[in-house]
Amino acid sequence: MLNKVVIESKDNSKIKLISSLKNKKHRDKYNLMIIEGFRAVTQLLDANIKLEILAFSEKSLNEIESYRTVYEKNKEIAVIIKDNIFSQLSDTVNTQGIIAVTSIPEYSKDMFDEKAKARVLLFDRIQDPGNAGTLIRTADAAGFDAIFVIKGTVDLYSPKVSRSAMGANLYIPIIEIEEEDLINFKKNKFKILATALDENAKTYDKVNYEEKCIIVLGNEANGVSKTILEISDERIYIPIYGKAESLNVGIAGAIVMYKSLEK
Amino acid sequence: MLNKVVIESKDNSKIKLISSLKNKKHRDKYNLMIIEGFRAVTQLLDANIKLEILAFSEKSLNEIESYRTVYEKNKEIAVIIKDNIFSQLSDTVNTQGIIAVTSIPEYSKDMFDEKAKARVLLFDRIQDPGNAGTLIRTADAAGFDAIFVIKGTVDLYSPKVSRSAMGANLYIPIIEIEEEDLINFKKNKFKILATALDENAKTYDKVNYEEKCIIVLGNEANGVSKTILEISDERIYIPIYGKAESLNVGIAGAIVMYKSLEK
Repeated sequence: MLNKVVIESKDNSKIKLISSLKNKKHRDKYNLMIIEGFRAVTQLLDANIKLEILAFSEKSLNEIESYRTVYEKNKEIAVIIKDNIFSQLSDTVNTQGIIAVTSIPEYSKDMFDEKAKARVLLFDRIQDPGNAGTLIRTADAAGFDAIFVIKGTVDLYSPKVSRSAMGANLYIPIIEIEEEDLINFKKNKFKILATALDENAKTYDKVNYEEKCIIVLGNEANGVSKTILEISDERIYIPIYGKAESLNVGIAGAIVMYKSLEK
Repeated sequence: MLNKVVIESKDNSKIKLISSLKNKKHRDKYNLMIIEGFRAVTQLLDANIKLEILAFSEKSLNEIESYRTVYEKNKEIAVIIKDNIFSQLSDTVNTQGIIAVTSIPEYSKDMFDEKAKARVLLFDRIQDPGNAGTLIRTADAAGFDAIFVIKGTVDLYSPKVSRSAMGANLYIPIIEIEEEDLINFKKNKFKILATALDENAKTYDKVNYEEKCIIVLGNEANGVSKTILEISDERIYIPIYGKAESLNVGIAGAIVMYKSLEK
């Protein structure tokens, strides 16, 4: 490993930038985010998503052949960082030694106006980054077209969400909307289906999921907001047969999303 | 809070016992486990599950009225522990200040032999405590009758699993079996359905889920073992439409479990 520059100082501008991106304020300012881990990063590269920085810990680059292959192919954006400094950039206890910096993608909320089909998941103030990330990963797997987000939802570009989404927050459009926008979406033929912890709502497997629909998932403690429930075309419910009081929102979302795809 | 004894020493026998139960070896030896958190513990009490010890941190008992109500009703098994000692017993960074010790329930693997209906989830070496716990919670919610476990699966009575299962590992029978037992289960009319990452397998929504069935979920990295796949009556597959390579096993299990309930 001769002739490779290893960053050894916390004061290096790239170290400072990567470190600052743990913070939403700085992600918003620079419009950049972090993706961590070998699998997530190589998926970005495979998907031809442009990376701004590709950072390796010195140790992992020295020890792992597959890392060196990735390094060689992406030399112009690659940096090597001393292990003790790298580990401070990582969001995990046992870092995999690879972090990418990439732009936060931007999408328009009217992108589906003219479309006959679009399946969208709406986060109404989901709080837990693990739940949000799992839902984004599942929405991507289920071929959903976008995630809509109501203000008050956890930031979907944080390192924790990225990790739990396995980078799918970069593949699926994420669009912030207001509650009132839902009235316009309805005019544009979206059917709005709100999940509810209410046994009087329609059971999830008896609902007619149209091909243009927004499935709403609510806050872990309070569920979907009253305003959104009122705008919704249908309230849907997943029965609970056991002692559990409720399903985890990530699980509930998965069951409903996959159900909506069935023909 | 006069006249209440507060345990201030790590050498107290109850402290030593609770602390030892973080370790599977000691859980097996004493046949006891820990449940942590106010909601999980009060659910146990509501379900009339016998507790051996009910431990409170001094601070939480002093400050939270609902804790005092629970304390007063369960005085004979309650202990109060100095905060700095209590926090060492807790599995979480921000402890809720309440931990229960209860027996690990035992069930027989032939409990369903004579039954016409039984829905069972089989863990074939699931590794992640969060995945296992979420699946147990969902299995309980879906009204499944038991979890079968192949040796090599993460211990389902660890504090991490209990937390993620929200205590449902106490409500749903958990039974360790051998791969070969599945042949007997088949003779006793169980249909065995193994999830597989194989597009040639049957799509999950086209499977005939019998009312006596075992749904098999495999190891996060390697899937269901070859032996079990060969014994299985059917291999089932959840389609992936997006860029994701796979679904999280907790999500996959939820989708299949709820699908199996539909009429």
